[in-house]
Amino acid sequence: MMMAEFMSQSELDYPFKLLEYFNGFRVSKVIFSACELGVFDLLLKSQESLSAQHVAQELGTSVDGMERLLDALVGIEILKVEQTRATALYSSSDVANLYLAKGSDKSLHDMIIYQSQTIYPLWNNMVDAIREGRNQNEKTFGLPSEEIFQAIYRSEEEILKFMGLMNSSWVLDGHDIATAFDLSGFKKIVDLGGCTGALAREMAREYESSSVTVLDLPQVVEAAKKHYREDGDDVEFQAGDFFSGELPAADLYILARIIHDWSEEKSLALLKRIHDVCEPGGGVLLVEAMLFENRRGPVTAQIFSLNMLVQTEGRERPPSEYTDMLKKTGFQNIQFCRTGKSYDAILALR
Amino acid sequence: MMMAEFMSQSELDYPFKLLEYFNGFRVSKVIFSACELGVFDLLLKSQESLSAQHVAQELGTSVDGMERLLDALVGIEILKVEQTRATALYSSSDVANLYLAKGSDKSLHDMIIYQSQTIYPLWNNMVDAIREGRNQNEKTFGLPSEEIFQAIYRSEEEILKFMGLMNSSWVLDGHDIATAFDLSGFKKIVDLGGCTGALAREMAREYESSSVTVLDLPQVVEAAKKHYREDGDDVEFQAGDFFSGELPAADLYILARIIHDWSEEKSLALLKRIHDVCEPGGGVLLVEAMLFENRRGPVTAQIFSLNMLVQTEGRERPPSEYTDMLKKTGFQNIQFCRTGKSYDAILALR
Repeated sequence: MMMAEFMSQSELDYPFKLLEYFNGFRVSKVIFSACELGVFDLLLKSQESLSAQHVAQELGTSVDGMERLLDALVGIEILKVEQTRATALYSSSDVANLYLAKGSDKSLHDMIIYQSQTIYPLWNNMVDAIREGRNQNEKTFGLPSEEIFQAIYRSEEEILKFMGLMNSSWVLDGHDIATAFDLSGFKKIVDLGGCTGALAREMAREYESSSVTVLDLPQVVEAAKKHYREDGDDVEFQAGDFFSGELPAADLYILARIIHDWSEEKSLALLKRIHDVCEPGGGVLLVEAMLFENRRGPVTAQIFSLNMLVQTEGRERPPSEYTDMLKKTGFQNIQFCRTGKSYDAILALR
Repeated sequence: MMMAEFMSQSELDYPFKLLEYFNGFRVSKVIFSACELGVFDLLLKSQESLSAQHVAQELGTSVDGMERLLDALVGIEILKVEQTRATALYSSSDVANLYLAKGSDKSLHDMIIYQSQTIYPLWNNMVDAIREGRNQNEKTFGLPSEEIFQAIYRSEEEILKFMGLMNSSWVLDGHDIATAFDLSGFKKIVDLGGCTGALAREMAREYESSSVTVLDLPQVVEAAKKHYREDGDDVEFQAGDFFSGELPAADLYILARIIHDWSEEKSLALLKRIHDVCEPGGGVLLVEAMLFENRRGPVTAQIFSLNMLVQTEGRERPPSEYTDMLKKTGFQNIQFCRTGKSYDAILALR
């Protein structure tokens, strides 16, 4: 992800790369702001290139501010521009149409909204998170740091935003996760904390003869059925709490981005509960951004681990820590699959 | 600065570059947080590599948080790590020692503090800045948007932080600016709004037979004398207000990152005032991040222009706009020099 030439003499002469890193938050916010304002949606819908004035008028913004934003998006090659007489006309790129506009199948719009409105302000308190070794929900949003999902699900609106984030991620990585191992032997799959059902649907598509059920908190299941149910959806939803309620019977339990939210103690308790209801030959599939064993990368996972610090009580882990936790709770035959993308898969059998 | 391959097929297959942009704010905050916590200072002073536990203890942070931060800094190749028995030992890189530690001649420490604590929260309101077409000092800091330097200089502490930012910039780009044109013919140079005197000192070093004076607001001059005066400093300081007070006589007036703060109206008034006191043959040197004439870059200048939107009443401009303003106020023989770094120089004669 990052450059190999960092320590080079040229960086000592003038720190171009370092200044680019300092600028990172601004580049993020250029894209996020355009997304929040609806720039990519408008350009996708429009059949022709549009002037800054036209875009500003349609989206109810200042012309001056919109022009600067559009020019910066051209600079980072997310939009295109052509000069006609006195006016610059802006149009979208394939990348923006596919990932940044709202309508597309692969839209990351909801991921961006969550990152911009929730994660960005949380990271403004990273110094305190490192000092105190705990999340900054209280300082950032006035919410108790012990009850992380009380913070994350603090309103109907925030529930939907968080669900949007989760959904976007599986739009990107779901297929790689579903095919990381041959799971066709597992006839009943339950995705614990499966949120909108995006990963569950990938599983159902890939393993047509298996049934797939999502278990999540009642308010999440309700929102999932309301906003994410598809025609002919063959994923079932069940309301419950995987820490305290009864777990449905299954051959395979999925925990996708669940373990990384919680302390080791709670993670072990959860894995033990799963082991207790799992038939021999059944298993558990963990999905996380896995650190290298020596923790020197991938950068994405290292940075996600800081994200977990500032927002949750969990962390990202190297393979050996998953092995330890799985063995401690009675699982065996542990296999790892690195996808090369953001999320990796770990399969273990009872 | 940015990639040429952005629109490539591979980005459509999986948006690695886009995800890196989304991560930009986190990478910025990894470096900023380490700087604020004193990580680079400690590693520079230490004669040996240090464990996360040692660093955490010295800096009064959690071990867990510090370990994640140090690992992320290794991931982006700003720190180095070696594994000895059970402990990872971290040490600094030449780049971090030179630019990120506090003591070094080329330290960007103060630039980082300002970006992290003032600019980062301002950019969280970029959407509103674009909607409204004006700065977000009121929403971010509760300060009136009309009086931009009341906001920037809202406390003794903020004055010093802002001065630190300015000083760091000229540590990087000052020499290129001083040598962009042969200014040896100008015997009396006045740097209007010259802040800590960092650029003025570059001028004094380069043009030994010229006298160099900094004019700035009384509280800035006081702080500059107190915190930035060097032994044998041959730069003079004078308190005043370049919009309303008498301008000292000079052959060359410097306006470095001044015009970009202000509306066109105020910029023209200021240039006119300078023209009125400038002797024939004298001139003005503007220093700004200059946009390309077609506004399609450089990315740094495009993004600075959004920065000006969210914090000031100004903007970054392409060469023709400087030409227009300078001609309107009576200047001629306008020359431009692009340095290829963050700031460029424009020289015009009366």
